[in-house]
Amino acid sequence: MERIPILKMGVFLLVTIQVDMHDRLALTLQDDLTDQIVKHRARGVLIDISTLEMVDSFIGRMLGTIASMARLLDADTVVVGMQPSVAITLVELGLSLKGIRTALDVEKGMAALQLAFAERGDTQDDDS
Amino acid sequence: MERIPILKMGVFLLVTIQVDMHDRLALTLQDDLTDQIVKHRARGVLIDISTLEMVDSFIGRMLGTIASMARLLDADTVVVGMQPSVAITLVELGLSLKGIRTALDVEKGMAALQLAFAERGDTQDDDS
Repeated sequence: MERIPILKMGVFLLVTIQVDMHDRLALTLQDDLTDQIVKHRARGVLIDISTLEMVDSFIGRMLGTIASMARLLDADTVVVGMQPSVAITLVELGLSLKGIRTALDVEKGMAALQLAFAERGDTQDDDS
Repeated sequence: MERIPILKMGVFLLVTIQVDMHDRLALTLQDDLTDQIVKHRARGVLIDISTLEMVDSFIGRMLGTIASMARLLDADTVVVGMQPSVAITLVELGLSLKGIRTALDVEKGMAALQLAFAERGDTQDDDS
């Protein structure tokens, strides 16, 4: 089970991180995610980290990398479900996740993506 | 990280299983899920097993138990993303998951839940 599932929800993709990330898994996720963005013409990526009780600079950088890749493929990234202690650690690590949007839960993240999506004036009306 | 996250999507809950299940984790999931169904007044549960490459009778029984518990709390359960090899194994194990609805992916599962939800004539119109 060395693969993080990517779920398609309308024009958005949802990833829930619930296992310890290591180099190979992070690379696999980046590959899979970019493939899926292109394959499904996804316009946004939601990354749920609600089960992460601690983060290190590796995870912080990984989130940044994913967001940058997604942006190049014209998809927004929203990180959702961050625990308060994780927010504290990230700032203490000097990782303020610039350029990454966050939301309290999946529903709020989805709403933020839909708003951004609508603002860009796309004609697709798929949602879910 | 000994906890499987449960994501709220409108009146439905989404669980993606991506780690090896063992007794304690399965019990925690059942407890959390029943709590969340009641807390959010959820009407359906989606269980994504797309990363499971094999199942044993333990997982099969767990899915059945979750569906039965959800039903008692007036929520439908849909298992989504089953790999073909898993379907073969389940039948060979004699576990045909009676009473559990399945769908090919999260979107189809969500559509099935919404249809069932509409048919029951509820007045809530929340979806996502």
